[in-house]
Amino acid sequence: MSSCICIPHAILLPSKTNWNSSKSNNGRRQGHCTDVPRNVNMENLQSGYLFPEIFRRESEHIVKYPDASLIRLGIGDTTEPIPDIITSAMAEHAFALSTVKGYKGYGEEQGNMALRKAITENFYKDVGLKSNEIFISDGAQCEISRLQMLLGSNMTVAVQDPSFPAYIDSSVIVGQAGKFQPETDKYKNIVYMNCTPENGFFPDLSTTSRTNIIFFCSPNNPTGHAASWQQLKQLVEFAKANGSIIIYDSAYAAYISDASPRSIYEIPGAREVAIEISSFSKFAGFTGVRLGWTVVPEELVYSNGYPVIKDFDRIVCTCFNGASNIAQAGGLACLSPDGYQALNSVVGYYKENAKIIVDTFESLGLKVYGGKNAPYAWVHFPGKISWNTFAEILEKTHIVTIPGSGFGPGGEEYIRVSAFGHRECILEASRRLKNFYT
Amino acid sequence: MSSCICIPHAILLPSKTNWNSSKSNNGRRQGHCTDVPRNVNMENLQSGYLFPEIFRRESEHIVKYPDASLIRLGIGDTTEPIPDIITSAMAEHAFALSTVKGYKGYGEEQGNMALRKAITENFYKDVGLKSNEIFISDGAQCEISRLQMLLGSNMTVAVQDPSFPAYIDSSVIVGQAGKFQPETDKYKNIVYMNCTPENGFFPDLSTTSRTNIIFFCSPNNPTGHAASWQQLKQLVEFAKANGSIIIYDSAYAAYISDASPRSIYEIPGAREVAIEISSFSKFAGFTGVRLGWTVVPEELVYSNGYPVIKDFDRIVCTCFNGASNIAQAGGLACLSPDGYQALNSVVGYYKENAKIIVDTFESLGLKVYGGKNAPYAWVHFPGKISWNTFAEILEKTHIVTIPGSGFGPGGEEYIRVSAFGHRECILEASRRLKNFYT
Repeated sequence: MSSCICIPHAILLPSKTNWNSSKSNNGRRQGHCTDVPRNVNMENLQSGYLFPEIFRRESEHIVKYPDASLIRLGIGDTTEPIPDIITSAMAEHAFALSTVKGYKGYGEEQGNMALRKAITENFYKDVGLKSNEIFISDGAQCEISRLQMLLGSNMTVAVQDPSFPAYIDSSVIVGQAGKFQPETDKYKNIVYMNCTPENGFFPDLSTTSRTNIIFFCSPNNPTGHAASWQQLKQLVEFAKANGSIIIYDSAYAAYISDASPRSIYEIPGAREVAIEISSFSKFAGFTGVRLGWTVVPEELVYSNGYPVIKDFDRIVCTCFNGASNIAQAGGLACLSPDGYQALNSVVGYYKENAKIIVDTFESLGLKVYGGKNAPYAWVHFPGKISWNTFAEILEKTHIVTIPGSGFGPGGEEYIRVSAFGHRECILEASRRLKNFYT
Repeated sequence: MSSCICIPHAILLPSKTNWNSSKSNNGRRQGHCTDVPRNVNMENLQSGYLFPEIFRRESEHIVKYPDASLIRLGIGDTTEPIPDIITSAMAEHAFALSTVKGYKGYGEEQGNMALRKAITENFYKDVGLKSNEIFISDGAQCEISRLQMLLGSNMTVAVQDPSFPAYIDSSVIVGQAGKFQPETDKYKNIVYMNCTPENGFFPDLSTTSRTNIIFFCSPNNPTGHAASWQQLKQLVEFAKANGSIIIYDSAYAAYISDASPRSIYEIPGAREVAIEISSFSKFAGFTGVRLGWTVVPEELVYSNGYPVIKDFDRIVCTCFNGASNIAQAGGLACLSPDGYQALNSVVGYYKENAKIIVDTFESLGLKVYGGKNAPYAWVHFPGKISWNTFAEILEKTHIVTIPGSGFGPGGEEYIRVSAFGHRECILEASRRLKNFYT
């Protein structure tokens, strides 16, 4: 099973650096200190960002069990080769950069118009978006921070609980979140919209406070739940009634198997209330290639009537300089008929993995959510602290998962299991889990 | 001269969108308005970001003179093919992504360690930096904004005047700059360090107010001046005495022809006071490929002794996800002995262009700065408003330059002329300028 062995990133991370190396034995610092105060928002940020923390734990585990064959179903990192048609397009673009005719320098900060058109055509043909409303990014996570720069510190924010940590962490960094409250494991000024099996993984909007911004991810990371058309209609109506802006993260839309909307713009009126961020990462295996996109409709305006798209364009021009032109050439190939078909096969492969994982945990008598419309299974271990479940699974089966509480207090008692992996690793993981738990 | 004709980006920019399309004839908006206030910092940002504004002017010019052969010496965009050895490495990396063995997903957010080591070895061998102090970015401009997120709104900032607009614009966006004051063309809370021929393009530090952050670019964009060792020693001592942090932009270091330092870390003590940002853009023609790096030394600490590198690492993990792995493979090839040698030839070509440009303007009796240690000539038109000079040159010679005042009030009376371009374009530009001005 050597194909399942992973060298964790953590061994390369500066987190191993001894930050106290410049301090003497009595703890007082030697040498020059600047008079620059540390950003209070950074001080307010709790513990490590989740995924590097997972890497750190992996790394410790490898040191403890150097001969173990580790299976990483933690961070949702794609593992299957990118179809030839796509990498050939990127290679061709790279080669062309060595020719007088093919060389290109700066592209449009907003992205190559051919790609913006292809995205419009492939994903938004039926909902009336225009290519100039599509902005090419280097991925959804980076774009979340740029959107936070756009919005600034004076915003109230709601997030699904549990949710992808970058929403909250970026809120803290720009100063929207208020103080962290250890007693609730929540930031004071953030509205946590609890999403549980009991409410169909959709918040009770009748008791949800009004905020300027609502981060909403569907299919959801980590629960794997894809919001239904009716749920999203409620969400858009709620945003409209409250004058809020939804930042809708559809990075996992390609994994939807049923009739759930793949874009917030399938809901009437969403153009006036929603920004959508999406990504080639999980759809095309571009986690390392880095490519995504963001939709900002022209109709979306601030309270003073000023178009959000105009400020976002300014952010993109000032704080970004466009995604790599080679990655963009790859994105265009992803959206060609043959590229798209090849990618659907890869997505199908991961969905089969997801089914194996869901079946495994269900066979152990556990309640499992997700896995149908998303590459994540969300497994309930009633009454158990999720970091303990994470540690137990790692210790006993050498499988890395993610503790649900890393996604917010609403994730407690759950673990997230990623369906990204070679089939033999998934099958081996299934065997180990069954052996350990039965 | 069709090789000099350029299709400007501006025709694709949303700036042409009619933002008032959702307003009725009496100017009142129709349809839904959110209750989300526009970010006051964005409101505070003056006019358009310089380079898109230049594109817009170009575009208007092309509409007016559709048959003119435009020569773009405005935005500093590389034009010469990237050496084969580098694009082949990128193509090879792309192809490998289609293989089980060569496929890679997420990389380290801080960048591929082999590349971080190569940068350390190539650029910082003699100044004692370590690879874990190097962070790979997608370019210096993007990194400036991430650094601003790191620092937050409660920072006082100094910039060279004139300077690359992203320093000030990003300061405005995060709320450091204070109100814009039309009477001085300056933001209230920013310290403008005037850099003119009279002071050797180096600020009079004896009259410069203390700030938390000092942005300093050398070789400078736009003046082309490379600060001397003595000047940088003064700067480091000034920062040390004031407890300030220097953010040193060395994106044009490859263009240095004389003994000027290529890194701030050549100055003793700089490790305790300076961050350095740099880029493959102008050194390797990677303006569209997107790759750069940032150095944050372990010794650099906030006033409370907390290491800046630790917070920056957190920013990189939360707000960035690493540069494209294909671009990073290209970066590694740039730093191979053959890649480096090939790139030096390209840099040499642009430097010859710069000499032609400098000689041209000097032959017209104008005083020209820069061009020796940077790919920019900084040409003085005494008593003339720089936007007028820009417009006159564009109108009469179909050559795009950049008006100096776009880089700050200290750039008034100057234009910046880029040396990036095919040789025949540079020679043709020289002919046209001589024809028009003599």
